Amino acid sequence: MKQFVNPFDYAGEICKAMKKGILLTTKAHGQVNTMTIGWGTIGVQWGRPIFIAYVRDSRYTKQLLDETGEFTVNIPVGNPDAGILGFCGTKSGRDTDKIRELGLTTEEPAEISVPGIRELPLTLECRVIYKQRQDLSVLPGDIVDRYYPQPDVHTAYYGQIVSAYLIQD
Amino acid sequence: MKQFVNPFDYAGEICKAMKKGILLTTKAHGQVNTMTIGWGTIGVQWGRPIFIAYVRDSRYTKQLLDETGEFTVNIPVGNPDAGILGFCGTKSGRDTDKIRELGLTTEEPAEISVPGIRELPLTLECRVIYKQRQDLSVLPGDIVDRYYPQPDVHTAYYGQIVSAYLIQD
Repeated sequence: MKQFVNPFDYAGEICKAMKKGILLTTKAHGQVNTMTIGWGTIGVQWGRPIFIAYVRDSRYTKQLLDETGEFTVNIPVGNPDAGILGFCGTKSGRDTDKIRELGLTTEEPAEISVPGIRELPLTLECRVIYKQRQDLSVLPGDIVDRYYPQPDVHTAYYGQIVSAYLIQD
Repeated sequence: MKQFVNPFDYAGEICKAMKKGILLTTKAHGQVNTMTIGWGTIGVQWGRPIFIAYVRDSRYTKQLLDETGEFTVNIPVGNPDAGILGFCGTKSGRDTDKIRELGLTTEEPAEISVPGIRELPLTLECRVIYKQRQDLSVLPGDIVDRYYPQPDVHTAYYGQIVSAYLIQD
């Protein structure tokens, strides 16, 4: 069951959960893939509620996102399961079906084609309305040194939050 | 007096306040200027707390921001003063000293050169660590039609939140 919510009521929890990680889920060609992310911002642009996800060039998630333009974000409410976030942060969906290996339960989406993950109950369904690859050449040197030993650049995906809910039994 | 806070504890209030407006303040050549904004996102990138402000090419604020790379954001806590937000959303700092005309009180900053505005007590001090002009050519047509009758494009200013507090008596 979905308990629909105002995503901004959970903006603080979303920002604070990123320290341990949240899940970014995509789906293409019938395959659902999820990855742990620790970066993202939430707010408003063009009068719409927006979640911006940052995804590196090399990620399988990027390929799926560019194909479908839709994603879900799942945030643990209460204590995150470190096992899920660790596994989904180190394995690639190119060679691992993370959903199946972890026995995660997908939740039928309300507005888009990508399901949420029941084990992390707070779900944002997002439709990409804008994306922009970031420009390393104008980033401070210490950030480039630390995060970009290879030029594996992030693209900012501006997802309009089209539905937000807690998944409940 | 400053009561220092975790900005993420106020992320929900910041997101929701944008509907009525929040203040973006800059300072250059000794002049403080403030404008009302209704768009922005808050969260994490490069492991740092970030507030992203979106500022159009034509704004005087953009000129000041590009010179100094610092800004404050002030958010009303409780009921916003519609008069302040309305005035600061329609007048330009090029020909109006909005701070003086409204009799606003500036608060000495903690970490940067730009003061906060006491009348809207929640203050984020931000240092720009990245900026990127948005690309209208990949935005949906309905957004371009509505927000860009002229190509007065927004630049995303990624401000690292270096201090956050409530201004109190």
